[in-house]
Amino acid sequence: MAGPEQGGRLGEFSRIRRYLAPLAAGCPGALGLTDDAAVLTVPNGQELVVTTDAMVAGVHFLDSDPPADIAAKLLRTNLSDLAAMGAVPFGYSLVLALPLERDDAWLAAFAAGLAEDQQRYVIPLTGGDSVATSGPVTLAISALGLVPAGQALTRRVRGPAAEQLLFVTGTLGDAALGLKFVLGTLEAAAAPAADRAALIGRLRRPEPRLTVGQALRGLATAALDISDGLVADIGHIAEVSGCSAVIYAQKLPLSAPARALLGRNPALWPAILTGGDDYELAFTAPNACKPALMQLENRLGVAITEIGRLENGPAGQVTAYDDEGQPLRLATAGWSHFPGD
Amino acid sequence: MAGPEQGGRLGEFSRIRRYLAPLAAGCPGALGLTDDAAVLTVPNGQELVVTTDAMVAGVHFLDSDPPADIAAKLLRTNLSDLAAMGAVPFGYSLVLALPLERDDAWLAAFAAGLAEDQQRYVIPLTGGDSVATSGPVTLAISALGLVPAGQALTRRVRGPAAEQLLFVTGTLGDAALGLKFVLGTLEAAAAPAADRAALIGRLRRPEPRLTVGQALRGLATAALDISDGLVADIGHIAEVSGCSAVIYAQKLPLSAPARALLGRNPALWPAILTGGDDYELAFTAPNACKPALMQLENRLGVAITEIGRLENGPAGQVTAYDDEGQPLRLATAGWSHFPGD
Repeated sequence: MAGPEQGGRLGEFSRIRRYLAPLAAGCPGALGLTDDAAVLTVPNGQELVVTTDAMVAGVHFLDSDPPADIAAKLLRTNLSDLAAMGAVPFGYSLVLALPLERDDAWLAAFAAGLAEDQQRYVIPLTGGDSVATSGPVTLAISALGLVPAGQALTRRVRGPAAEQLLFVTGTLGDAALGLKFVLGTLEAAAAPAADRAALIGRLRRPEPRLTVGQALRGLATAALDISDGLVADIGHIAEVSGCSAVIYAQKLPLSAPARALLGRNPALWPAILTGGDDYELAFTAPNACKPALMQLENRLGVAITEIGRLENGPAGQVTAYDDEGQPLRLATAGWSHFPGD
Repeated sequence: MAGPEQGGRLGEFSRIRRYLAPLAAGCPGALGLTDDAAVLTVPNGQELVVTTDAMVAGVHFLDSDPPADIAAKLLRTNLSDLAAMGAVPFGYSLVLALPLERDDAWLAAFAAGLAEDQQRYVIPLTGGDSVATSGPVTLAISALGLVPAGQALTRRVRGPAAEQLLFVTGTLGDAALGLKFVLGTLEAAAAPAADRAALIGRLRRPEPRLTVGQALRGLATAALDISDGLVADIGHIAEVSGCSAVIYAQKLPLSAPARALLGRNPALWPAILTGGDDYELAFTAPNACKPALMQLENRLGVAITEIGRLENGPAGQVTAYDDEGQPLRLATAGWSHFPGD
């Protein structure tokens, strides 16, 4: 049988044994991926957090992207959902729908990407399914996390929504700007090579804010990860909490590459407000928590920035103000996979 | 916006709200599908069983199949894995990758199929992801089940493998014969319409043997569901248990339609031995358990048939004997999505 170095492909069971079973080696309950299902023990006092994210080539990534980057993005978007709930990673199952002709080298590189991130974020593969498709590469992960009972963070604000401030972690808009370089809607000349690489890196390898999310338990009153776009996601919090939100554009935390690019091209601002894919956390907390949040920022080395507040008003309405206090008009609130939203 | 009756399509969020959120209504931890993840409480003393199955149009079902049948098959193949472990259904997450032009009527019928089976098998939707694809409809479910700690049934035999008898539930080969009618490799004239409908029904709506699987805890020493094909799946048990297996073809339980069809066309026998998709359970138990298994059969109204035994020999080797005691030669041991296995 041809090995990966020859551009061949093993049979399905052999591929699972060679490339995927090693990813489950750290999880006895995965039964070596030879059984119908995994059997896992959830510790007493912990609740189970379950999230699922799917990606399709040509929609969520380019088929020509490095397979390890695709793997990292797939796992990290799921981990980001666990982070938003304040959960600790527990295990994940993988759905792989690959074209028949996809060779072993691709799968080897994809599995290597998963292996690296499994170590980095301490999460084993517990099982999954591998199928053939006549269409594009289609991937999904269902990730499990653990959170102390009753402490999961949700999008709905606990307590009176109108008294909450809005915060975000890290910097915003980098992935959206990186995507413009990848798609060619921004010419390479628009930024130095190092800046382009940094922005594209945010797109391909988002950093799930797991330690921040876990530390926010008992501190944040609502949380989510910014995947649909800042305005859309803040809108999600406001909608389920029955209130409105205001955001001040000049408060949004920007990376040095993003700041430089926006300085030269202010027309890119909507990408910061509506672009998703940064996978930073947005959360609410009362004013009294600000000292604790500053301590957290220092301890974890992740920027935490106040960007606005919730207020009484139509549920789900989000208004973003520019630095002169004028409301910004945005063509679209965020990312949707389908038209019509 | 167009409703399903106009052949239109709502936006993504609206579709989730209208068609999928009602499926999660019975599960408070699903948070109305408005959050990043579900939060579930696993009762003390229970272990979590996790299984994942994916299906692709053109590979596992026909795009022209009734959407409710597709939904039923997707959910039931996952439930069958839970059954094989002896687990009780707990919840499931759904991955939907649909072509952009797929209209709401399809999704409405698909969701109705899920709703019906959720009631039948008492399992709520907990979350999932809905994405667009340029390829065929691609579906996956990750199902969760509960089993008392330490009691999950697995493929590896507990105890001395060579002393175990082999049993199956229900009847075998119906789905494989039904598939031949669907694909046209068997002409409709080969069986009466009612028989054809019964066989095709087994293919489209397999019955997950949940109550049998749960009752086999503490009785069966190994179990799995027959999805790859009888010989292949018995081979899985034998391989992980380090032994061989023998099967007696004349002992295999056949439905009346299958028996009639085989009587007229004995060349169809390999379909019984190697066809998958019946989703019956195969399990091992010692001779001493036979009275208890007969009681179980009577109590649950599901046939339990002894079809062979495990024995010392090369790990994973399966020999099937015909009614004259001659070993049968099989061109392929079972179903694989990829060539080369």
